[in-house]
Amino acid sequence: MAKIIKLHHLGIAVHDDMAARSFWEDGLGLKVDHVEDVASQKSQVIFLPVGESEVELVKPLSDDSTVAKFIVDRGPGIHHVCFQVDNITEMLKQLKEKNIRIINEIPMKEEGRLMAFIHPKSTGGVLVELYEVL
Amino acid sequence: MAKIIKLHHLGIAVHDDMAARSFWEDGLGLKVDHVEDVASQKSQVIFLPVGESEVELVKPLSDDSTVAKFIVDRGPGIHHVCFQVDNITEMLKQLKEKNIRIINEIPMKEEGRLMAFIHPKSTGGVLVELYEVL
Repeated sequence: MAKIIKLHHLGIAVHDDMAARSFWEDGLGLKVDHVEDVASQKSQVIFLPVGESEVELVKPLSDDSTVAKFIVDRGPGIHHVCFQVDNITEMLKQLKEKNIRIINEIPMKEEGRLMAFIHPKSTGGVLVELYEVL
Repeated sequence: MAKIIKLHHLGIAVHDDMAARSFWEDGLGLKVDHVEDVASQKSQVIFLPVGESEVELVKPLSDDSTVAKFIVDRGPGIHHVCFQVDNITEMLKQLKEKNIRIINEIPMKEEGRLMAFIHPKSTGGVLVELYEVL
């Protein structure tokens, strides 16, 4: 049976990245590890490590990105939580067996990782992402 | 300067605790550590450890609890994120100096911990809780 290893990151939708950085960096004292454009999500991500996890500030780079739509609908704030699993293929199989709705039945491959989202309708309103680090 | 130690927990507002447990326990395979009634929050909390963090499923026990109102306004889902700090008094002082709005300027004392919430208006829409473990 596949297992969750840790809470990998918390994805936070921001529309003003400088204001957001001001709170997380100057206020809470977290340090930015790096900033990355994620083409597949049409967004820019600021990575701030916290213990074994990360806070990821996700700023849309296009109005038709998922995160831009989320901000229009619900305002900025927590967008998703990502858990690292030991085997994403096994995990998705066991979730499907429980009739849990997967957004990406075949995991997407990004730099160094496989990833898939679980539909909030099957999780009690939480957009859950799964990562397998390669 | 006060420091964040780790992401302590993610608080998830649920209206149907059995359905929520079904996803987190049977689906993802997390284990319930314990269940606790938190009188000050008029809610029941189910604790599921994940790595060095926890998922906390928060079910309102009263219609006038903060979490019940959150569910009416926004539906069930991620309610807040809590970070453990080494010194909450110092952290609140340094946040106030940056004009960040604190909900509990004097930390509340619960069993084994001091806690305070930061207002989402100062964080980009995220309800942030701080814990100092005693």
